[in-house]
Amino acid sequence: MCPPGCLHAVCETATRRGLLKAGFAFASAAAGLGAIAPVQAHAQATAARHSFSRVQDLTHTLFEGFPTFSGEKWFTVEKPVTWEKDKVNLHRWTLMEHTGTHMDAPLHFSKDGMSVDMIPITDLIVPLAVIDIRERAAADPDASLTPDDVKAWESRNGPLPEGACVAMNSGWHKLLDSPKFTGRDADGRNHTPGFHAETADLLIRERNVKGLAVDTLSLDPGLASGEFPVHYQWLGSGRWGVEAMAGLDDLPETGALLVVAGPKVRGATGGPSRILALV
Amino acid sequence: MCPPGCLHAVCETATRRGLLKAGFAFASAAAGLGAIAPVQAHAQATAARHSFSRVQDLTHTLFEGFPTFSGEKWFTVEKPVTWEKDKVNLHRWTLMEHTGTHMDAPLHFSKDGMSVDMIPITDLIVPLAVIDIRERAAADPDASLTPDDVKAWESRNGPLPEGACVAMNSGWHKLLDSPKFTGRDADGRNHTPGFHAETADLLIRERNVKGLAVDTLSLDPGLASGEFPVHYQWLGSGRWGVEAMAGLDDLPETGALLVVAGPKVRGATGGPSRILALV
Repeated sequence: MCPPGCLHAVCETATRRGLLKAGFAFASAAAGLGAIAPVQAHAQATAARHSFSRVQDLTHTLFEGFPTFSGEKWFTVEKPVTWEKDKVNLHRWTLMEHTGTHMDAPLHFSKDGMSVDMIPITDLIVPLAVIDIRERAAADPDASLTPDDVKAWESRNGPLPEGACVAMNSGWHKLLDSPKFTGRDADGRNHTPGFHAETADLLIRERNVKGLAVDTLSLDPGLASGEFPVHYQWLGSGRWGVEAMAGLDDLPETGALLVVAGPKVRGATGGPSRILALV
Repeated sequence: MCPPGCLHAVCETATRRGLLKAGFAFASAAAGLGAIAPVQAHAQATAARHSFSRVQDLTHTLFEGFPTFSGEKWFTVEKPVTWEKDKVNLHRWTLMEHTGTHMDAPLHFSKDGMSVDMIPITDLIVPLAVIDIRERAAADPDASLTPDDVKAWESRNGPLPEGACVAMNSGWHKLLDSPKFTGRDADGRNHTPGFHAETADLLIRERNVKGLAVDTLSLDPGLASGEFPVHYQWLGSGRWGVEAMAGLDDLPETGALLVVAGPKVRGATGGPSRILALV
């Protein structure tokens, strides 16, 4: 059974139809979700035209030692062949899905939500709304993005676009090389900004938003670790997230199109992703 | 030292400038390649505007048991935590970089070519030319895409777009569930279509092409395994490839924009990628 505002594939047709009427839709060869096929056919007929002249890469380079939420090493590279011996280069990776710049699928924090491969590509290319809380976060790493931040953004830019991703720019994407990136204290607690639970609630109940994105390692503020109210509520509602995003400073507050090129892996709860903005 | 037509970052400035003059350019926050920074700045000023109304996912879903070039298992998923016990889902992957729908970076078949993370994102979003050899490949799995196929395409569509990716549609993307996908015979040789070495030579010397893409597991025809003339020549020239692409039948011969959302992993020779067409 789904919670209020659920976007699970089996019960989202009506909601999706609303989005499509609003003109934000693409045709898609993805997904293979029988339930939404008629909606996709509709999308093909009514799809809006989108244009861009600049691509911005919002992806950190992943490497062994990339900071992780838990402090454990989550990415390892081995070199079973070498150029010198084999005249070919080919590496083996071992990784936890939620490492580097990555996406969270609904399945990450729900019993049977969608895995990455089940999310139609049309739901991963969406209008991007960037909410800047850099000043407050610089003064307090435990700051959160509140409903008031959303309303202030809307007072400047109008209502959040239908089907958008709301991204928090806390300035943390520039701290990757600093201990501040995880903000781990002597008690093992992380001090990093994130979305306030009331904001997730507002966006689920009163807006039409597909994704949340952060430039930290967690949608929740670091101090909410263990409880994870935003993870459970947001992903549990069938929506997706992006974590450890880079390059947010050079984007407009509104007007860009976000491309969440997540790993199309069967059953994946998330995974390293190439995140782009078309501006 | 670089071969003729080399596109290595350190010696490509002149070539890139030519592409930019031709109007196909984006600004980029990627790469960090000092040598081309002035060219990127130029791109920001002159970038052409691109538009699309449809997104096509050209990515197969990756799973344990996805066919591989060598026949070995190249992708494994473990579940160190479970919803029942931990109330979170999170998997660990072990994979060889060249599994599933994936890209080949120059480093894969060269001593010191660019790794995936070194390729500017502007070089991974390019015009897509689809060359259809399905009929010939259906009759002969050892068929190859020849210079004549390129010329026939150009006689219908005009010159290959500057900076394009040339994709072979052999029909193999529909054979994933069939033994034909690898075409492995009793002697361990693969029978699959690919680019003829003379085609790679033509495209390097007489056209301005950034990438090759195939719907099989190798840029080279299966019977060229071991020799890999296209891999060595093409990747060795600093260009990239995409292998095991899906969904090619629903694309126009020309006019789409290819997005090669490769894994931004330091030093990667390639890796599973989300491949999209903007139409």
